Amino acid sequence: MVAYLGTKATAAMVARIGPGEFTQALADRIERDFRRWPEFETSARLASHSARGVIELMPTSDGRRYAFKYVNGHPANTQEGLLTVTAFGVLADVATGYPLLVSEMTLLTAIRTAATSAMAARTLAREGASRMALIGAGAQAEFQAIAFHRVCGVARIDVFDPDRRAVARLQTNLAGLAGLEIAPAASAAEACQHADIITTATAAKSRAAVLTRGMVKRGVHINAIGGDCPGKTELERDVLEGARIFVEYAPQTRIEGEIQQLPPDAPVTELWRVLRGEAQGRRNADEITLFDSVGFAIEDFSALEMAHEVAARLGAAAALDLVPQLADPKNLFGLLTDAVGVFHKGIDERHGFVGQDAQADAICAP
Amino acid sequence: MVAYLGTKATAAMVARIGPGEFTQALADRIERDFRRWPEFETSARLASHSARGVIELMPTSDGRRYAFKYVNGHPANTQEGLLTVTAFGVLADVATGYPLLVSEMTLLTAIRTAATSAMAARTLAREGASRMALIGAGAQAEFQAIAFHRVCGVARIDVFDPDRRAVARLQTNLAGLAGLEIAPAASAAEACQHADIITTATAAKSRAAVLTRGMVKRGVHINAIGGDCPGKTELERDVLEGARIFVEYAPQTRIEGEIQQLPPDAPVTELWRVLRGEAQGRRNADEITLFDSVGFAIEDFSALEMAHEVAARLGAAAALDLVPQLADPKNLFGLLTDAVGVFHKGIDERHGFVGQDAQADAICAP
Repeated sequence: MVAYLGTKATAAMVARIGPGEFTQALADRIERDFRRWPEFETSARLASHSARGVIELMPTSDGRRYAFKYVNGHPANTQEGLLTVTAFGVLADVATGYPLLVSEMTLLTAIRTAATSAMAARTLAREGASRMALIGAGAQAEFQAIAFHRVCGVARIDVFDPDRRAVARLQTNLAGLAGLEIAPAASAAEACQHADIITTATAAKSRAAVLTRGMVKRGVHINAIGGDCPGKTELERDVLEGARIFVEYAPQTRIEGEIQQLPPDAPVTELWRVLRGEAQGRRNADEITLFDSVGFAIEDFSALEMAHEVAARLGAAAALDLVPQLADPKNLFGLLTDAVGVFHKGIDERHGFVGQDAQADAICAP
Repeated sequence: MVAYLGTKATAAMVARIGPGEFTQALADRIERDFRRWPEFETSARLASHSARGVIELMPTSDGRRYAFKYVNGHPANTQEGLLTVTAFGVLADVATGYPLLVSEMTLLTAIRTAATSAMAARTLAREGASRMALIGAGAQAEFQAIAFHRVCGVARIDVFDPDRRAVARLQTNLAGLAGLEIAPAASAAEACQHADIITTATAAKSRAAVLTRGMVKRGVHINAIGGDCPGKTELERDVLEGARIFVEYAPQTRIEGEIQQLPPDAPVTELWRVLRGEAQGRRNADEITLFDSVGFAIEDFSALEMAHEVAARLGAAAALDLVPQLADPKNLFGLLTDAVGVFHKGIDERHGFVGQDAQADAICAP
C-alpha cells in the first residue's frame, strides 16, 4: 500500500509536532540536502502553460528516493473562492520504482518555503539580526513569521499590508506564540525602518516595486519570496544592483526570480555552494544580501521525505491501493476476475467470465 | 475533493462494464483523440534513470484537461515478487489547475495499450483479418486478446510462450469469452503460420528476434508491443525493412521502439496522420504493415478522462482531500488552527496556539 497524507492529516501532524518544531526540523533537513546538492538530479520544472495559468511538475532524485511535486499557479482562481496555488507530491523508491507516499503539498509547500527562507537567512543575515520587516500578509505570512522566529531568533516583525484584515488575521493566528511581537506598520517604508531582515511576500501579479532602494539600509538581508514566475517581480531593479544575490538553482531563477530584471550573466551565487563552503556568503556587516527564492524541487524532496518519516512514526498516514499486489505478476488480468466478487451485476455465471453492464455503451460514451 | 480510483475500484468498474465493452469504448476514444492530435501538447517523456530501472512522467494537455502518468520500469522487481511496471496518473482541470482524479494506472495502462493496438490494427490490417498469432503470454496477453476479439473481430488466437503455465493461465482467464478460440502453438513460427495479424508481446530484455522475416507472410499486420525502451527490441531487423512502419510519436519511438534498430531517418508514419486522412495507411492486401507501439501520453489522457467520466456515472470513485478548501484563501495557516480540534495533545490552551509534541525532535529527526 502507498501512504497517503491528505490536507487534514498533514495539518494534524504538523499541529501535533508544533509548527515551529516542524519548520525548524525541515529547515535543518533542507540545509542537509542542499549540502549534498551534487547527489541530486536537477532540472528546471516542466511547465504546461495555458491562458489562465500554469501547471508544473518538479521532479528530482538523489538515487535512493525520487520525488516530484505537481503545482499550479492560477491568479484568477481567487475570484471563484479557489486557491491561486495548490500542490501535491509523491515520494518513490528508486530501487523498485514503487511510490511510497502521496501527499498534499499546499501546506507542505508553505512550510518548506518558509523553512528555506529562514535557513538562507540563518546563513546570510548579519549576526544578531532580530527584527524583520514583512511586506505582504498573505497565505505565507504566518509560516514566514514562525520560521524566522524559531530558526533565526527574530523577536519582532513589523508587518505592512494594504489589507488591514490580513494583518489582523496574522496577529490573531500567532497571538499565542510567546516571544514574537507582531507590529502593524503604516507603510512598507515604515516597516523597513529598523529591520535587520526584510521579507517581501506580496501577490503582485506583474512588475511591481514594493521594495525600493531607499528602504534598504546597510547590512540588511532581503528575503524575496513573491517574485516567482516570468513577468512577476516585486523589487525595484536598484535593490538588486545594490545587493549580493543568492539563489537556489540559477537556470530556473534567471527565468522566474527577481533577477529576470538583470542581464542573463549577472553574477549570482547558488546557496548550496555557500553551505558547502565553496562560495562566500556575507563578507561583512555592511553589505546587503538578497535571497531571490523561487522554490526548487530539492526543497520539496526534503519536505516529502520528512513528512513520510514523521507520518510513519506517528501513524498519521492513511493507505491507498494505488499499486496492485499480485500473487502472479503475469496475471494482471486476475484483478478483473477477482473483481467479479465485488460487482455481481451482469456477470455471466455460466462461463465465469466478467460480464457486461447492459448500459455499458451509455456509461462509456464521451 | 479529488476523485480517487484505486486498483480494486478500477478493476470493479471495468469488470462491471465488461472488459470488452470498456476496451472498445477506450479504443474509440483514443482514435477520437488521435484524430485531434494537433490540439495536444506533445513531448517525449521525462525520465529519471537509475542502475535498476527508470521512473518516467508523461504529461500532456489539450487545453481543457491536463493529464500525466507516473510509470516505472524495473526488470529485477519480479525477483522480489513485485511488478516490473506499475503506474498511476492524474487528470486535472486546465482552467483552475485543480486535480480532478488520482487513479491507479497499472490496469488502465494494460487496457489502453491493448485498445491502442486494436485501434491501430482496425486501421491497418487487411480487411477480414480474423486470426492472430500472439507471441508472449505475459501480463498483456488477456488484454490484447480481448481487444482484438472485440475491436477487430479476431476469432482465433494462436499463442506461443515457452512458459506453458502462462498459456494455460490465458486460456483459463478467457474460457468464458464466447467466440474466441485460444490455441496453444508449439513455436512462434507455428503460431504465425496462418496469421493475419501477429502480436509480439514478450519481456525480452535486450536485443531479441522473437519474430524473423521468414515467419511473416505477405499481407500481415504486425503489432509490436514488447520493444519499448532503449536497448530492448524483439523483431529481427529484416522484418522492419520489409514492412511499412507506423508509430505513435516518432521522436519518442525512434529512441524506444523497434525502429531504434534503423537509421534515424528511416521513413515512418505517425498513425494519427492516417486517421486524419493526411497519410496513407495500408495500400494493398499484400504489403506488410507494422505498428511499432511504445505507448504515448495521449493514450493515457484518453484513459484517465474516460475513467473519470465512467467513475462519475457509476459512483465508483472515492474522495481524497488532496487540495484544501479554505473559507479565506489568505488564511492557509487556518488549516493548523483548525487541526487543533483533531489533536488535543500538547496544545497550549492558555494561548490557543498549536502546541509541541514533547518528543518532536526525535519524531522529526532524519
